[in-house]
Amino acid sequence: MNSQQIILASRPNGMPDASTFRLEDKQRPELKAGEVVVKPTHFSVDPYMRGRMNDAKSYIPPFQVGEPLSGGAVAEVTDSKADGFAPRDVVTGNLPWATEAVVPANGLKKIDTKLAPASYYLGILGMPGLTAYFGLLDIGKPQPGETVVVSGAAGAVGIVVGQIAKIQGCRVVGIAGSDDKVAMLTEQFGFDAVVNYKTAPDLTKAIADACPDGVDIYFDNVGGEVSDAVIANINFHARIPLCGQIAFYNTTDVPVGPRIQPMLLTRSVLMKGFIVGDYKERFSEGVRQLAAWVSEGKLRYTETTVKGFDKLPEALLGLFSGQNTGKMIVEV
Amino acid sequence: MNSQQIILASRPNGMPDASTFRLEDKQRPELKAGEVVVKPTHFSVDPYMRGRMNDAKSYIPPFQVGEPLSGGAVAEVTDSKADGFAPRDVVTGNLPWATEAVVPANGLKKIDTKLAPASYYLGILGMPGLTAYFGLLDIGKPQPGETVVVSGAAGAVGIVVGQIAKIQGCRVVGIAGSDDKVAMLTEQFGFDAVVNYKTAPDLTKAIADACPDGVDIYFDNVGGEVSDAVIANINFHARIPLCGQIAFYNTTDVPVGPRIQPMLLTRSVLMKGFIVGDYKERFSEGVRQLAAWVSEGKLRYTETTVKGFDKLPEALLGLFSGQNTGKMIVEV
Repeated sequence: MNSQQIILASRPNGMPDASTFRLEDKQRPELKAGEVVVKPTHFSVDPYMRGRMNDAKSYIPPFQVGEPLSGGAVAEVTDSKADGFAPRDVVTGNLPWATEAVVPANGLKKIDTKLAPASYYLGILGMPGLTAYFGLLDIGKPQPGETVVVSGAAGAVGIVVGQIAKIQGCRVVGIAGSDDKVAMLTEQFGFDAVVNYKTAPDLTKAIADACPDGVDIYFDNVGGEVSDAVIANINFHARIPLCGQIAFYNTTDVPVGPRIQPMLLTRSVLMKGFIVGDYKERFSEGVRQLAAWVSEGKLRYTETTVKGFDKLPEALLGLFSGQNTGKMIVEV
Repeated sequence: MNSQQIILASRPNGMPDASTFRLEDKQRPELKAGEVVVKPTHFSVDPYMRGRMNDAKSYIPPFQVGEPLSGGAVAEVTDSKADGFAPRDVVTGNLPWATEAVVPANGLKKIDTKLAPASYYLGILGMPGLTAYFGLLDIGKPQPGETVVVSGAAGAVGIVVGQIAKIQGCRVVGIAGSDDKVAMLTEQFGFDAVVNYKTAPDLTKAIADACPDGVDIYFDNVGGEVSDAVIANINFHARIPLCGQIAFYNTTDVPVGPRIQPMLLTRSVLMKGFIVGDYKERFSEGVRQLAAWVSEGKLRYTETTVKGFDKLPEALLGLFSGQNTGKMIVEV
């Protein structure tokens, strides 16, 4: 039986394009002991995947040219030679971009789609939700009354960061790239203020106006000039969880900008890069708390769904032009 | 009775020069209750003082034009209207740059010059020693076998950082600006390797060669291109205590350089600015431990002494051209 796969055809130099990806038919290998056959129903596309297309040292090995890309997905088991997995089980895990795949069962986790829709396990109860949870609480350590700024505020992580910061009693200021996102975040997600970085005539001043007491925590999803403007308003003893630098994922030169160390020094600021995997021993705590806030109505959720397996590359590239509000999901 | 004072004559724009300072005679005010008369014997000059010459928001208020500069000093009490202080007491505190001064006693601490020479209380048992101790141990959290790089390695803080890191069982690599300093740090202070940043043809490669297992902790006293070269070699989960940025203390433009956030992000690195005052509740712990290491011979000390009250400005400026090895002290 054949499955369709999306292959990394060549490593992109800058922004990926049509030559980066290739759709291919592939014969399914034989099922061996410890393996299952899965049919993905939902794929997650995430900014970090761009980094995996480069042949560079990072926290996760690069995708290989000629091999399928892969990422977080929800799938249905259709055949199993693994203990504890049976047809019709719904699982989540890191899966190849394929319409059907034979994979080891030990990387999969069964999920309960009666508790929450399947796609939630790729979003608010998955990697983006946990990223927001640990980055904000463990690095940011928000205190009631503090001001939290989050960039990429309408993205999968940012929208959760803002809401958790509100639960912690903070003033929450988002930065986003369209008036629709500004309206959505303030009207539906409880942000105290949102700055449109594309239209603000002076971003540093716009952030200063939105943060009359300065910035105590800056949850950074984007980097670049947006971050320069926030850091110009940073308070003494502020914390900066570094979660993403989407501004540079498609650049080829080493980015240059104002040096931040003098500011971090004179204001005793902490900045910390992290990935969600740094917290893997606490994932169950995080999922439990996020699920509780969702069921109590304290944490709202939104996602952008693109339909069709072959739309995966397009959906991924859409992240870099801000096509999504909340989590971007591809439904097969 | 008259005392001589060194006044901030004008705020420097870039490197301070003759027009920055002015020597002035001043009539001593009357001694009031709670005050003492002190005659300083040793003044500390430190890089952070340059920042106080600017009219800028920082962790410490700026010096005022027309007023004397001030800083850490050891002094003898010559008269007292304060409980617990008597003539011939030796004290340390933040004192004006004056040959004699009337100051409130509540900012002073009596010291015992039989336990350690007076100048030690401005160096290894004072602000620079405590800065090294807390920055390295509390932010750096060194583990045996890790590699610690310290810039400004022959300075008052760096020379202590390197030795404490050795006590913790780390490999210690210094960065300094002369072959004499390189020789001194390796031969007398136990550094495993020292790189001369002024003569290394490729600093990034020189640091890579000196750190075959990468850099786990970078104690940054200098900033700029030296730091760029270290950060290019930084390990996953590394820690960067930001202690000084002497490269920029005499610049007027906002310094520009490669953005570091992408590197800190992909390697889950922590960077934290700090000042010793962040740890003031733990000063007695720090002094006790430093004094114990000194008396056990585990921590060696060196200082550069300049003689003459009027040499204070010259000694301060000497810090920016690396005139000192270890703590720079002006003996009155």
